[in-house]
Amino acid sequence: MLKICVCVSGGGTNLGAIYDALEAGKIKNAQIVRVISNNAGAYALTRAKDHGTEAVCVSPKNFETREEFNKALLASMKECNPDLVVLAGFLVNIPGEIISTFRNRIINIHPSLIPSFCGPGFYGLKVHEGVLERGVKVTGATVHFVDEGIDTGKIIAQKAVNVEEGDTPKVLQQRVMEQAEWIILPETIKRIADGEIKIG
Amino acid sequence: MLKICVCVSGGGTNLGAIYDALEAGKIKNAQIVRVISNNAGAYALTRAKDHGTEAVCVSPKNFETREEFNKALLASMKECNPDLVVLAGFLVNIPGEIISTFRNRIINIHPSLIPSFCGPGFYGLKVHEGVLERGVKVTGATVHFVDEGIDTGKIIAQKAVNVEEGDTPKVLQQRVMEQAEWIILPETIKRIADGEIKIG
Repeated sequence: MLKICVCVSGGGTNLGAIYDALEAGKIKNAQIVRVISNNAGAYALTRAKDHGTEAVCVSPKNFETREEFNKALLASMKECNPDLVVLAGFLVNIPGEIISTFRNRIINIHPSLIPSFCGPGFYGLKVHEGVLERGVKVTGATVHFVDEGIDTGKIIAQKAVNVEEGDTPKVLQQRVMEQAEWIILPETIKRIADGEIKIG
Repeated sequence: MLKICVCVSGGGTNLGAIYDALEAGKIKNAQIVRVISNNAGAYALTRAKDHGTEAVCVSPKNFETREEFNKALLASMKECNPDLVVLAGFLVNIPGEIISTFRNRIINIHPSLIPSFCGPGFYGLKVHEGVLERGVKVTGATVHFVDEGIDTGKIIAQKAVNVEEGDTPKVLQQRVMEQAEWIILPETIKRIADGEIKIG
């Protein structure tokens, strides 16, 4: 049984897609053991509770220094003893100690075709703003391992999505989620649970 | 009738795809009036002659300085009085005077999804080497207007192509040509000939 810790900052629609795949039996031999959010108000925490998962908030607001927050985040991850950590819209810079503790066991979903529109400054809606500003016709999403760089880790899966005439960043964001993120993230977890992709 | 000047350095398979679309009646109201190559041995020149098109070699080897070559290239383009200049695998840095003379009338095909794997150093097989080195799962091709930068002009069309397990640069290059370049380049010329995309 692959034990998964999912980290989310917002609504958690990617988390929802993982629950859907688990509950439909598309992903076998896997279980979400904890959902962590850095944001107490994240709907992802409600989503987790609704599915009977332990939901934990580790907010930087509750710590004096970044170091203390980082330590608490690592402690919360370790506590649930996960085989895999999934960053599913987690807007936190992952400290080196967490990366080395879970080397090749942390995956992230990024809403563009890396190496386009990634790295410092490209997160959330800013990615789609960048895509529209450059006038790109094809974008997409990427699942990758997390290493010490920002969006520099080994790519596991990518899926292309067309940009349409008249798209706004929000419209494009929704299409990229529906047509790419909610597909490749559960698929990747299935392939890891099946042993097709090696982790660790 | 849209008069087209095509510039090619090598085999000219993209040129071949344009001839196919013209001869199948997929592109109407357009005609290739001249093919220019910087390489006397380019098979593209034979291809042009076979289709009854004027085929011209303007090689830097025949000129003392780059300036003289640039001047001769511009002169050869002007001579055929084109509405549109198509760079179809033309491995020559286009001088500013040509760009300003044919402002928004020069299009280029690039074998990646710009802004990935483009700019200085990314041409020909090097693009596909870069894609495989980074472990990207989705690549493609881009048709764009040519401006003063390298691969920085307005994007007109893009098409995604999957990278497959075990791809070599050459295998990937061939797939990107077949599944993207030979489709979007004739399609773009058709849209220009139909007045759907404005040039000039």
